[in-house]
Amino acid sequence: MAAEEIITDKTVSLVHQRARNARGWIDARANQIRLELARCEEKPFDEVIKLFGDPHAFGQQPITSLRQLLSCLLCPHFVDDPNYPRDIKEKAQRILEAKPGFSIASYTEVSGLRIIREHVAQFISRRDGYEADIEDIYLTSGGAHGIQIGVGVFAANSLESKCKAGVMTPMPGFPLYQARCIEFDLYQIPYYLDEENDWALSISELRRALDEARPHCRPQGLVLINPGNPAGQVLTYDNIRDIIKFCAQEKLVLFADEVYQETMYREDVTFHSCRKVVKDLGPEYHKFQLMSINSVSKGFYGECCLRGAYIELVGFSDKVKQQMLNVNTANLSPSIIGQAALSAMCNPPQPGDESYETFLKEKRTVLDSYRRKAEIVVSMLRTLEGVVCNEISGSLYAFPSIKLPRKAVEAAKRNNCTPDEFYCWQMLEETGITPIPGTHFGQKEGTHHFRFTILPSEEKIALMFDRITKFHKEFMQKYRTEGEEKYERLNGTVV
Amino acid sequence: MAAEEIITDKTVSLVHQRARNARGWIDARANQIRLELARCEEKPFDEVIKLFGDPHAFGQQPITSLRQLLSCLLCPHFVDDPNYPRDIKEKAQRILEAKPGFSIASYTEVSGLRIIREHVAQFISRRDGYEADIEDIYLTSGGAHGIQIGVGVFAANSLESKCKAGVMTPMPGFPLYQARCIEFDLYQIPYYLDEENDWALSISELRRALDEARPHCRPQGLVLINPGNPAGQVLTYDNIRDIIKFCAQEKLVLFADEVYQETMYREDVTFHSCRKVVKDLGPEYHKFQLMSINSVSKGFYGECCLRGAYIELVGFSDKVKQQMLNVNTANLSPSIIGQAALSAMCNPPQPGDESYETFLKEKRTVLDSYRRKAEIVVSMLRTLEGVVCNEISGSLYAFPSIKLPRKAVEAAKRNNCTPDEFYCWQMLEETGITPIPGTHFGQKEGTHHFRFTILPSEEKIALMFDRITKFHKEFMQKYRTEGEEKYERLNGTVV
Repeated sequence: MAAEEIITDKTVSLVHQRARNARGWIDARANQIRLELARCEEKPFDEVIKLFGDPHAFGQQPITSLRQLLSCLLCPHFVDDPNYPRDIKEKAQRILEAKPGFSIASYTEVSGLRIIREHVAQFISRRDGYEADIEDIYLTSGGAHGIQIGVGVFAANSLESKCKAGVMTPMPGFPLYQARCIEFDLYQIPYYLDEENDWALSISELRRALDEARPHCRPQGLVLINPGNPAGQVLTYDNIRDIIKFCAQEKLVLFADEVYQETMYREDVTFHSCRKVVKDLGPEYHKFQLMSINSVSKGFYGECCLRGAYIELVGFSDKVKQQMLNVNTANLSPSIIGQAALSAMCNPPQPGDESYETFLKEKRTVLDSYRRKAEIVVSMLRTLEGVVCNEISGSLYAFPSIKLPRKAVEAAKRNNCTPDEFYCWQMLEETGITPIPGTHFGQKEGTHHFRFTILPSEEKIALMFDRITKFHKEFMQKYRTEGEEKYERLNGTVV
Repeated sequence: MAAEEIITDKTVSLVHQRARNARGWIDARANQIRLELARCEEKPFDEVIKLFGDPHAFGQQPITSLRQLLSCLLCPHFVDDPNYPRDIKEKAQRILEAKPGFSIASYTEVSGLRIIREHVAQFISRRDGYEADIEDIYLTSGGAHGIQIGVGVFAANSLESKCKAGVMTPMPGFPLYQARCIEFDLYQIPYYLDEENDWALSISELRRALDEARPHCRPQGLVLINPGNPAGQVLTYDNIRDIIKFCAQEKLVLFADEVYQETMYREDVTFHSCRKVVKDLGPEYHKFQLMSINSVSKGFYGECCLRGAYIELVGFSDKVKQQMLNVNTANLSPSIIGQAALSAMCNPPQPGDESYETFLKEKRTVLDSYRRKAEIVVSMLRTLEGVVCNEISGSLYAFPSIKLPRKAVEAAKRNNCTPDEFYCWQMLEETGITPIPGTHFGQKEGTHHFRFTILPSEEKIALMFDRITKFHKEFMQKYRTEGEEKYERLNGTVV
């Protein structure tokens, strides 16, 4: 008797049937083109450039002290090497001493190694001026894992009620929130950022979104991404305070995605953690529930694939924290190398340390270049016909809008994709460069955007824009209709 | 207006409410005792010894070539260091060349870096004599993540049917399977291993378990752990073939947990991968669906906290594999250090390589000591009154049964725990040593067991058994009743 296929694409779980590839089909096509190039197929370009938030992929150099700490942990004989800075060796020694067997690879607690959670608590306390509790901190395998833990708490089956739990998510916003809402069968309540107003967040828009959603779900949480991904905005102190008050009033848990907290580019812009603002609100907000994530993947470290991050759980009872931890025990420990990278981030070299000068120089080099490139990218995007782009205040991205010719919209429809996907896909096929379509982040109906990153080097950005400008002109030329040309001339502006 | 608590232990999702700490409450108590020792509290011992399958925690030394590869990847200037073996430097170079930006920390494909999946495919092909396809291989953040991906496919909501999907799981068996069944709301179908018969698996027992479960669920999968955790058995070729035929006949997907495939201790025992046996069954089994996991955490590498593992998906359509990958995209990439550790395991030094001799010596040292310790542990356990222990054929564990006095069973009930939990907990409090209670793995009603590991050094095992023997005698003495003593004398054996 022949064995039969048991699991088919029709019989896998609903989660599997509904799941979308969080990186999208254009990314899959980009991977395919890479293989085609490797097989020496003829292309009008010789490399694929994915515009992910992946600093090292663009040649950003790692912070030496972080990498030295990790190699010391993996090969403890470096602890005796005179070429290694003393402060790094001492840090490695202290972490190894906290591990059974003096080996970095033995399991840690599910919430992460205690001494590293202490480093995180000290980092948060210094940042906010309010003591953090290490029992509130869980180390995670990257920020994505923190999102899973946090958003998972709202999972739809929380009450006997037939009504789904609802989570407010920003539009545009990082697509993993949508992916987790699908996974956990949550009702997604999109709220829109105000593009005309530098992607600000208005309380009236939050209220509109919530009021519209109430008949369909039980709203439970609000996701805030600050500094913004993909829109590059940074919220003011007053704005954050109003959002927190809104959450308290509407009985929503605040999930603060603050992974870009180290990268700000404007004189008039400062990062304020939601935690600090909650604490500033005083004892009345003692029970306010806030989850916040931070990661070593972004900022000037950019160590994406080491998977080091944390989630802090403010205002949660011990019992709920234990339940969240229990669910997470099935993952055993988060990667110790990710944990150790996070320790390097939260406990960096201090003045007087042997590795301090190098650390400071490397940090400044990265942040200064981000600042310059944030300006360059915006000004280059603005030279493209039909493209309108806000300043970048923080994070690593611009999110320009693009007005596409009617015939391009029709061509997209014929290709079963959205107009911005069509534009990004065509750019990939012609130039090898692949920005992320606005569709992935969510956008107001009838508008089209794409996300661009400031991460390539200045020289590379110039070269990329040579190719992009040429592509863009040809694309607009190809799809422009006579009527649109006339409209353009009449208005004296680009379409 | 004061902010209120939104998420309480009553309102978190059912998944959270039902979740059990996969490491158990005795482990939590062990962590607490560690803190008490650190605070210099008086105890009859000076260290806590958790009997986890965590080789490095017991002082097992890492395999040098693996750690050298990792440090070369993190600090690429080692590629020019004359002190590093050439084969390691070449391997590091090839991996770095496959990464955008030549940095190990840039993101990889969700399924893992292609060149490392090639190493895994070559490893599987060599092992089985049948070519493996890299598109069937997903790298995961540890074996636990592979279990999540695999067991997740059976998730209960797979059809409109109200009937839960069912998964057959071994008793005794690794507790993460139970944890994931709870998480995915699956119906767990326990089947029992035959302790009297060296923990063998009989098809008639599989059929009994399945027949009893059919009215309550739609059986979808069967989990097989070989070599066994916790019972240390190794299945014969014929036994595996019969299990595969059973799965084909009963339309079950086979999930093979083969993370202990490198550790076998008896002359007459060999590891046979389920994949090889399926392929041997010929073209009729072309559509047979098998998932198998392997990991760098166990075996002679023992790099638990680097979180490197893979799952291979045999017989699944491209569409289903894509759906499984889509769900997983929300995790972005698995840890690159785990991936690289797996590459070291699957692509080890070969004869002629500069690092080969050291590698071989280190590997043999570990495996030889495992073999000796597997014997020592069993013979020491057998000296304890009331303890009966099978030989260890493979993996890292013994799973002896223990006959506990009636008064101990009553004391357990008073403490709201099972008799084996009570015994292990008391051992922890008296000796600092904590075996894992049989309750965690599942056992036949009325029997009591605990899992012991062969991982401590030979000297340590001797010292531990001094303490355990003393504890055990006192425990049995304390809880023995007069009737039981008489029974013992009458039978001339221990109770």
